[in-house]
Amino acid sequence: MKNNLAVTIIGSGNVATHLYKALASDKKPILKIEEASTEKRVEVTLVNSRTLENLPDHSDIILISVKDDAIAEVAEKVKGKASIIAHTSGSVRMEVLGNYAEHFGVFYPLQTFSKDKQLEYHNIPFFIEGDSQATVKALRDLANEISTEVFEADSNKRKKLHIAAVFACNFSNHLVAIADELLKEEDMDYRVLMPLLKETVKKLESLRPIDAQTGPAVRKDKTVMAAHEEMLNSEPHWKAIYTLLSSSIQDMAEKSHK
Amino acid sequence: MKNNLAVTIIGSGNVATHLYKALASDKKPILKIEEASTEKRVEVTLVNSRTLENLPDHSDIILISVKDDAIAEVAEKVKGKASIIAHTSGSVRMEVLGNYAEHFGVFYPLQTFSKDKQLEYHNIPFFIEGDSQATVKALRDLANEISTEVFEADSNKRKKLHIAAVFACNFSNHLVAIADELLKEEDMDYRVLMPLLKETVKKLESLRPIDAQTGPAVRKDKTVMAAHEEMLNSEPHWKAIYTLLSSSIQDMAEKSHK
Repeated sequence: MKNNLAVTIIGSGNVATHLYKALASDKKPILKIEEASTEKRVEVTLVNSRTLENLPDHSDIILISVKDDAIAEVAEKVKGKASIIAHTSGSVRMEVLGNYAEHFGVFYPLQTFSKDKQLEYHNIPFFIEGDSQATVKALRDLANEISTEVFEADSNKRKKLHIAAVFACNFSNHLVAIADELLKEEDMDYRVLMPLLKETVKKLESLRPIDAQTGPAVRKDKTVMAAHEEMLNSEPHWKAIYTLLSSSIQDMAEKSHK
Repeated sequence: MKNNLAVTIIGSGNVATHLYKALASDKKPILKIEEASTEKRVEVTLVNSRTLENLPDHSDIILISVKDDAIAEVAEKVKGKASIIAHTSGSVRMEVLGNYAEHFGVFYPLQTFSKDKQLEYHNIPFFIEGDSQATVKALRDLANEISTEVFEADSNKRKKLHIAAVFACNFSNHLVAIADELLKEEDMDYRVLMPLLKETVKKLESLRPIDAQTGPAVRKDKTVMAAHEEMLNSEPHWKAIYTLLSSSIQDMAEKSHK
């Protein structure tokens, strides 16, 4: 009986790099296999998706962590090299992997990864999908080596998570980028906003976002809104964002009061 | 010579309540008056803006913390009752207070306040404006009783700060509210986004928002964007937000590469 769980991560981007770090960390995580009352160590290999250099002949699990439209291509190249092939994408259906391994699934971490930035892994939510209960269990066990927050999610749920993350993270970051530009016009640094940003997020631990909403739009403060829109006249793009988001805030507030 | 600094806060909203808490806290803050080498305590009174019950006959500083369009009206009612009158609004010009006290100014805290939520005060940025250097100094000293982050800002700077805060805080919160609605459709809780939200803000401590931008728009991942827009077909408002913010992200990325 094999003692170790061989995991190969294919990719060189932010997600691949961080998954490798999380699994290869010094603590040498140990998988508890209940049935056999024996222990397995995770042996993790990071492989570049273009060269596929050092790809092991056989892995228990291959995680493909490349751009969405390259997933199938990479899977084809590693066909037959693993018991389970999974990808780490929020948007791609599990079935694209169906032809390339006996078992297949998804291993999706809901977090924003930057290569050079240290990250706490233990509370990153992982969303798992698998072609069978055994696959789900194997991928769950692996995710549990990294995080305590591991959930099952089919493709529909995963797509909703991904688009929700685009709104909550990617778009929010862009709004701070606009704020940064506005402050620069008056020689101010966006970092004066940090306490406000932290508190905006912290509030959501105890209040639903609809109940945490503040600002001129939800107060229907037309004077302030008109003054703001005038300030944005020279930036029609940002003005359109201001108008659209303000009306969406008022819309949602109205619906929630009905 | 008077020993105490008499401060009256007029208002009953979130900002008034928190400023009162911050100034009336047990530690009994002490103002160091350099010239006189003596010490003053802050004596703070909270007064309802409608009844004006218990309004002291004279205060060193009156802070008017009411809705923007009620500031002048309240100032008129307390005319002559203070050496300095200041308001706490991001949008209102200092000069609206010019007729109601010998000295006047602005005492603007850049934070999102919710009444029942505890808050750390010491790092809230305060932006001060005054009709004279003496007024600026008096208001700065008072702000320093609460926070270590006290700056001077004229009306133009303050207006920019306020609109920047609307983008970075109010609008971001609304985007999380949309994410919440999207997740509800699949019976998921918005709280799975909390680690992502925290990391999105934490990144900005070391990266400018333009450099921290991730997601399908900045990657120009047309497949994902088209799939997302299709998912939003039943919510034209959110689809318009998705399209507009995505194109604004691409716009800003292009300009920054030039």
